[in-house]
Amino acid sequence: MGSLDTNPAAYAAFAADVEGFQPLNADDVRSYLHKAVDFVYDYYKSVESLPVLPGVEPGYLLRLLQSAPPSSSAPFDIAMKELREAVVPGMTHWASPNFFAFFPATNSAAAIAGELIASAMNTVGFTWQAAPAATELEVLALDWLAQLLRLPASFMNRTAGGRGTGGGVILGTTSEAMLVTLVAARDAALRRSGSNGVAGITRLTVYAADQTHSTFFKACRLAGFDPANIRSIPTGAETYYGLDPARLLEAMQADADAGLVPTYVCATVGTTSSNAVDPVGAVADVAARFNAWVHVDAAYAGSACICPEFRHHLDGVERVDSISMSPHKWLMTCLDCTCLYVRDTHRLTGSLETNPEYLKNHASDSGEVTDLKDMQVGVGRRFRGLKLWMVMRTYGAGKLQEHIRSDVAMAKTFEDLVRGDDRFEVVVPRNFALVCFRIRPRKSSIIAGEAEAERANRELMERLNKTGKAYVAHTVVGGRFVLRFAVGSSLQEERHVRSAWELIKKTTTEIVAGEDHK
Amino acid sequence: MGSLDTNPAAYAAFAADVEGFQPLNADDVRSYLHKAVDFVYDYYKSVESLPVLPGVEPGYLLRLLQSAPPSSSAPFDIAMKELREAVVPGMTHWASPNFFAFFPATNSAAAIAGELIASAMNTVGFTWQAAPAATELEVLALDWLAQLLRLPASFMNRTAGGRGTGGGVILGTTSEAMLVTLVAARDAALRRSGSNGVAGITRLTVYAADQTHSTFFKACRLAGFDPANIRSIPTGAETYYGLDPARLLEAMQADADAGLVPTYVCATVGTTSSNAVDPVGAVADVAARFNAWVHVDAAYAGSACICPEFRHHLDGVERVDSISMSPHKWLMTCLDCTCLYVRDTHRLTGSLETNPEYLKNHASDSGEVTDLKDMQVGVGRRFRGLKLWMVMRTYGAGKLQEHIRSDVAMAKTFEDLVRGDDRFEVVVPRNFALVCFRIRPRKSSIIAGEAEAERANRELMERLNKTGKAYVAHTVVGGRFVLRFAVGSSLQEERHVRSAWELIKKTTTEIVAGEDHK
Repeated sequence: MGSLDTNPAAYAAFAADVEGFQPLNADDVRSYLHKAVDFVYDYYKSVESLPVLPGVEPGYLLRLLQSAPPSSSAPFDIAMKELREAVVPGMTHWASPNFFAFFPATNSAAAIAGELIASAMNTVGFTWQAAPAATELEVLALDWLAQLLRLPASFMNRTAGGRGTGGGVILGTTSEAMLVTLVAARDAALRRSGSNGVAGITRLTVYAADQTHSTFFKACRLAGFDPANIRSIPTGAETYYGLDPARLLEAMQADADAGLVPTYVCATVGTTSSNAVDPVGAVADVAARFNAWVHVDAAYAGSACICPEFRHHLDGVERVDSISMSPHKWLMTCLDCTCLYVRDTHRLTGSLETNPEYLKNHASDSGEVTDLKDMQVGVGRRFRGLKLWMVMRTYGAGKLQEHIRSDVAMAKTFEDLVRGDDRFEVVVPRNFALVCFRIRPRKSSIIAGEAEAERANRELMERLNKTGKAYVAHTVVGGRFVLRFAVGSSLQEERHVRSAWELIKKTTTEIVAGEDHK
Repeated sequence: MGSLDTNPAAYAAFAADVEGFQPLNADDVRSYLHKAVDFVYDYYKSVESLPVLPGVEPGYLLRLLQSAPPSSSAPFDIAMKELREAVVPGMTHWASPNFFAFFPATNSAAAIAGELIASAMNTVGFTWQAAPAATELEVLALDWLAQLLRLPASFMNRTAGGRGTGGGVILGTTSEAMLVTLVAARDAALRRSGSNGVAGITRLTVYAADQTHSTFFKACRLAGFDPANIRSIPTGAETYYGLDPARLLEAMQADADAGLVPTYVCATVGTTSSNAVDPVGAVADVAARFNAWVHVDAAYAGSACICPEFRHHLDGVERVDSISMSPHKWLMTCLDCTCLYVRDTHRLTGSLETNPEYLKNHASDSGEVTDLKDMQVGVGRRFRGLKLWMVMRTYGAGKLQEHIRSDVAMAKTFEDLVRGDDRFEVVVPRNFALVCFRIRPRKSSIIAGEAEAERANRELMERLNKTGKAYVAHTVVGGRFVLRFAVGSSLQEERHVRSAWELIKKTTTEIVAGEDHK
């Protein structure tokens, strides 16, 4: 029994008791949703003043709320009260304009409204027939986004000439996009290497830069690749931590010479750690020599490529096999929304298709429709396309580009501020809206070496985060501990960036003064 | 350019243009959401009168909406107008009370409101630190549900004695639950069979009844199991299509004798095809002889086990390794929500854990918290626990049980109606709220044999579905084509079930008369 346990008897009687239990009574739905909308409105109005990172200890919520499920019903107000009093104080506020950690989870009015409607319609679009409009709107939204990204027609579901050979699907995470393409590439490599069943899997090799998200290495293991065959190609400052095609070629050639089968290369446009960019076209050219699948992970930075000035980061994409990017990161579409495009849909569905009797129907049999279950891990799926379509329909290319550019401009402002203070350094060139910086070691200073710099920067991060006025995360680049300042939370304005900078300067001064007295 | 293309100039100017683009302006959010709530209210009030299965042709929506993304912004009303006029007419209405296909996607006011708030907060809870309250509320909701299901404490995150060794996670689909447990079982089997890397994978075998959902066989392939080692154990009418433990033992023993490594058994409680129930305890006993992982897929029927009268279907669950069930099917929680419980969390995280520098934090290092990313395929994750917690908090065990019982009672009513008309037969015993029935072949009738029965039942299904007044799906059980009548859509009342039955009778009479004239 938690300390916030509320006595239902003190509240109005449960509304829907009169004619039996009606969980989806339209009046109740409207009433609950109006309460939820009021909460959301208040939340956005007040989130700026809430500590971004809460000062709670593990297990705090379990001590506040009752540990056993209630046996009787309670007015919805009780859940809302416990949400306000127990849950909100323990949230890390990703929606706060003072959130600069990880990558922002950008969002918009149109996306939230779209997701609400999808939740209420609650369709399960495993096949076209099970939800024709949901399937087609997802296909349309993906094709729209492909056009904004200027992807080649080979990645589109519909081209001027009718149904294309490529296509897309909306998944929950980049990891899933990696996993399903890894499996398709694995199966193709097994077939072409004449494997008896999966026996040849021990000979298949995969490649990615050492800056690639750790989830890639996990996805490889999920798909059954041998951990010993997962090549992490070292990167360095000379390529700004992007994948060096010469090193990739060397690794792939060495494996091929050893009788192994180079199967899959993952190139990243905008790494999580420091926003490094692997050269897509050059990677594709290397991989083509070995008939290996190339996937581009543009989870974060893909969104920027809707602006002509950033599109060059995707140059060569017409020669890769698949690309994924996540509008839930930087295209104002709430979680979850990862768009996967493949150049040859059949290579994916060949590995993922199922055809149980209970899902058979004329439309699927006709071959004229896309059954999206055959491009993902699971069977069931929400009405995933609605919110993404609503975002593009409402804001249009112009506002979406404005949003990207505004974030980049704010990041540039922050970068200039950092560069203007010689206690700090920007560690790698800023490509998008992420600034990797640190208090730099200086011989003349008390922060004389790398060890002292790491200690000072850790201290800076921890002090900042404890204030509740900013949340900044870290990474290690080239052996150096650096702070990641990611701009773009959807409520963020330039004043928040400037305030955070003031806080960083002030805290750094305190740290340096503290060091002086040691 | 689609036929429904709307001219933005005819609408009010875009609201947030005054001070730069504010995608999450609180006033806009409220305004958009109020429009969405009005839509949802109208939708629930009118969905009964909409054709359940739309009469649209593949590509219909692509012809209605513009094929290129808009370059400029448009008032949200335009997206809403196109939703109403182009999307809704092409939806299969899972929320319709006349929906009897597949399994219902049940829903409730509390769930939708919870999901709305989760979309607005838009946290990404990969680690505890990234969203402490979201992680802890998910853990709490899972423990509450475990108590409702009377799962043993070994599956709970928190027990009376503190943190347990087991625990749960909310995933998107049953397929993901199968995949992650298959991978954990695979890795354990590789280790104990002394495999060099994944070389031993060719010796690992997995087992499930032939009635198991096709996604299981897909998940096995995703995890790299050899298709030749996936055993589909035949079932028959003598066990009502449930798995026969003797046959399972025979298959596992034969494999073990052949030097293979029995690795994983999937038992289903409530199969998709006909709601067959595999005997959980007996399956666990057989698997234990081989040290194989046992997973229980109770996606649909697990929800019924919150009622004491259905709980016996889980007898023996204390001896299995994992169980998954999906509140998005039958516990009034909108998609997606699949709860996976494992008895030993470390067996799962051992295969799924990642620890990149940019996610490191004190809480994770302390070992005192659950980082839910290590129990799923992906890294990012929504605030998944909120809606499930709100459903239990608001309705309580009593209303949830009432909801299950009411659905089962309606299914019983339908079953009785079918049994009362000798043109029909109930093909397998009804276990939950699914009735599998058909027009039966009778020597004295024009539907004299199995071939004629299949033709007549297909005809019945197609005619029913074309009316728009009911949507019924089919399966094949024991070689017979049967109709699946799944009761429980959240707006459904007994009158809808009775109307559907009247329609079935009338249509059958027409078919039989038609056959007479052939």
